[in-house]
Amino acid sequence: MTPLPRALAAEAVGTAGLLAAVVGSGVMAQRLTDDVGLQLLANAIASVAALAVLIAVIAPVSGAHFNPAVSLAQAVRRDLPWSRLPGYAVAQVLGGVFGVVVANLMYDLAPLHFSDKPRTGVGQWIGEIVATAGLVVVVGHVSRGGRGDRAPWLVAAWILAAYWFTSSTSFANPAVTIARMFSDTFAGIAPGDVLPFVLAQVTGVAVGLAGIHLLVDTPKEES
Amino acid sequence: MTPLPRALAAEAVGTAGLLAAVVGSGVMAQRLTDDVGLQLLANAIASVAALAVLIAVIAPVSGAHFNPAVSLAQAVRRDLPWSRLPGYAVAQVLGGVFGVVVANLMYDLAPLHFSDKPRTGVGQWIGEIVATAGLVVVVGHVSRGGRGDRAPWLVAAWILAAYWFTSSTSFANPAVTIARMFSDTFAGIAPGDVLPFVLAQVTGVAVGLAGIHLLVDTPKEES
Amino acid sequence: MTPLPRALAAEAVGTAGLLAAVVGSGVMAQRLTDDVGLQLLANAIASVAALAVLIAVIAPVSGAHFNPAVSLAQAVRRDLPWSRLPGYAVAQVLGGVFGVVVANLMYDLAPLHFSDKPRTGVGQWIGEIVATAGLVVVVGHVSRGGRGDRAPWLVAAWILAAYWFTSSTSFANPAVTIARMFSDTFAGIAPGDVLPFVLAQVTGVAVGLAGIHLLVDTPKEES
Amino acid sequence: MTPLPRALAAEAVGTAGLLAAVVGSGVMAQRLTDDVGLQLLANAIASVAALAVLIAVIAPVSGAHFNPAVSLAQAVRRDLPWSRLPGYAVAQVLGGVFGVVVANLMYDLAPLHFSDKPRTGVGQWIGEIVATAGLVVVVGHVSRGGRGDRAPWLVAAWILAAYWFTSSTSFANPAVTIARMFSDTFAGIAPGDVLPFVLAQVTGVAVGLAGIHLLVDTPKEES
Repeated sequence: MTPLPRALAAEAVGTAGLLAAVVGSGVMAQRLTDDVGLQLLANAIASVAALAVLIAVIAPVSGAHFNPAVSLAQAVRRDLPWSRLPGYAVAQVLGGVFGVVVANLMYDLAPLHFSDKPRTGVGQWIGEIVATAGLVVVVGHVSRGGRGDRAPWLVAAWILAAYWFTSSTSFANPAVTIARMFSDTFAGIAPGDVLPFVLAQVTGVAVGLAGIHLLVDTPKEES
Repeated sequence: MTPLPRALAAEAVGTAGLLAAVVGSGVMAQRLTDDVGLQLLANAIASVAALAVLIAVIAPVSGAHFNPAVSLAQAVRRDLPWSRLPGYAVAQVLGGVFGVVVANLMYDLAPLHFSDKPRTGVGQWIGEIVATAGLVVVVGHVSRGGRGDRAPWLVAAWILAAYWFTSSTSFANPAVTIARMFSDTFAGIAPGDVLPFVLAQVTGVAVGLAGIHLLVDTPKEES
Repeated sequence: MTPLPRALAAEAVGTAGLLAAVVGSGVMAQRLTDDVGLQLLANAIASVAALAVLIAVIAPVSGAHFNPAVSLAQAVRRDLPWSRLPGYAVAQVLGGVFGVVVANLMYDLAPLHFSDKPRTGVGQWIGEIVATAGLVVVVGHVSRGGRGDRAPWLVAAWILAAYWFTSSTSFANPAVTIARMFSDTFAGIAPGDVLPFVLAQVTGVAVGLAGIHLLVDTPKEES
Repeated sequence: MTPLPRALAAEAVGTAGLLAAVVGSGVMAQRLTDDVGLQLLANAIASVAALAVLIAVIAPVSGAHFNPAVSLAQAVRRDLPWSRLPGYAVAQVLGGVFGVVVANLMYDLAPLHFSDKPRTGVGQWIGEIVATAGLVVVVGHVSRGGRGDRAPWLVAAWILAAYWFTSSTSFANPAVTIARMFSDTFAGIAPGDVLPFVLAQVTGVAVGLAGIHLLVDTPKEES
């Protein structure tokens, strides 16, 4: 197992890269076109392309979670030692915020400022549950049976879909949700709307773990 | 072979996920842009990204048909026991309708309501025949010779193409067709137009089976 | 080797599928949006998604050329017997025209009619040379060293790029060029402009064969 | 190792292909749509599709750097002999300029002319550092442990993301930067803005090498 400091550094760098991509491409999209559909399409494509690369490169070092919800699910399933969960979550959040700072600097914006973009309502919370549950199932799937090479593309494909089909545009990640408070753009989220999103994501982890039980784990009578 | 209840649950979950993606991304697209071309592009990309993931995850459990037309073709070719076909079809339809309910709830719409979007005419029925036949050939191809790993990407690529090149935008799936009756959006279909679509899809299965005979099965003199 | 009649049928079916995708998605795009850039993007994505699938499925039967220029290059390099070249070319052209007929019928257009879309000029002919040469190099690459599994995605990626970066939108295929005479749409080509395109494509084959010599064949001193 | 003249020819051809794709698709996009967001989306997709193909085909011959920054990083890491670096860089720059000439000829533009598109400012230079550093890490990753087959898709995915999320649209390549001086289009860069971009790219190489140390190299205590 990778020594903890190196694993934490890798999680932080990866989450920073993810957030720089999410927020940076959101700003670029907003500046180049007035069509919000096209903004979301470009934002989604850029975000998941970066995500796939970051997973491919960083998975051998730390597992490439970039996401406390994923780390929680992996801990429940004993794919991550429980003792590493707090460090992972902190590294992911700090890395994510740093990534937003980088994005803001790239676009000559104030490095840290708050978003006032509202994202709330039962429909969007259901969206977060669905998006996170699906992500947890995908991660559960690729963590079994030598399927690691599938991880970058399956995770990217799921997030690409969920960007568009969930009403919340699929944050599905507490570190991403917290970090996106600091971007008053297309990709932002108002601070007051963060907590319900995170609670929905935790609910999604529970649903996803049930999904893994149904779809990934092989019952004894079948083996 | 997976026990039947688990296989049916997997087909239902997978078809629900597919329909949530198809209908949810359709609603999102309609809300974000007025350009119908862009709506269809986003709808198609999101739908097939979800489809690829669902196939990759669920194929080991139930075959990941999500589609009575595919299950029928697999039964004809003895890749699915005939005795499982009715259960598969029912699970797919119920799962599909549930997926539309989830999509409607995510977007704060009535959970079940009927579409009044007309989809009819000889041209569109030819489209359904072409789309379904191609899908059946692709499934026949990936069911032979250790090609299972190709299934997610080839099926997704075919449906992506067929979304755009067939005049019906490629339903190619009776469960999808029935479920999309319950979404009065971009992705819906008026109930009165469902039966001819399903008949065209069954015709497409027959054409696809002929295509498999030509393109996939190796005649004895060649082996 | 696959018996000739089956190989010819496979080439015809594959080229028909390709043309149905190219022309069908062109009509769909034209009907859904006024933005010509978006039309070409959707047209390109749908075309190459279909192309990748058709290559993956049909390559084991006939090589999946769907293109007399590719068959010519393969014959020069002894990957196709010269005696099969005329049959392949005829099957590809007839299949391609049939595919356009299917597309026209799907969209309730006259099954066969001529295009009056002009496509001419030195710039576009250079485009055809570049597009065809690149395609020939890609095919030469995947025909060596157990790289067959790369063929669908590399060919699709090349054509996707060439759709956009060559001034001709990359026909790169005499069968496609002839067949697209019969579609008076976004995807058509006026009959009088076909011959120079085909001559440019043949020139591209020669350039591509030189490229294979440089980029694919391993000189003796290196082996 | 490939003899130097053949390796240089391969680098020149590959960089020419890349620049023809980047500039050609930029001109096409500009001519087809007024939506700058859509222009960048098409430009990015076409560029990275070509890049993936060129890497796949040319990597066995010369490593497929097409980029003096990558060649520099590979030299530092002893994956390229230092003695080859100057030749590689010259071949890449000359090939890149030739590719722009081809693009200009395809679109009936003067073969060589200067751009007056300004690209400058601290934000954009940070963008170049981020984009180049990420590219160097990806190349470092795929150069270890039998990961060569991942190179085309990971590099393409990174550049696709960086096109959209960095404020500079990710040149990340001195040869590309110099060559794009010669295109007064969407894809151009004013000559006076080239040097700071190149300096930022060299800085990015240093950052990327540090990233490789953290994310790719396995410390002894872990092996």
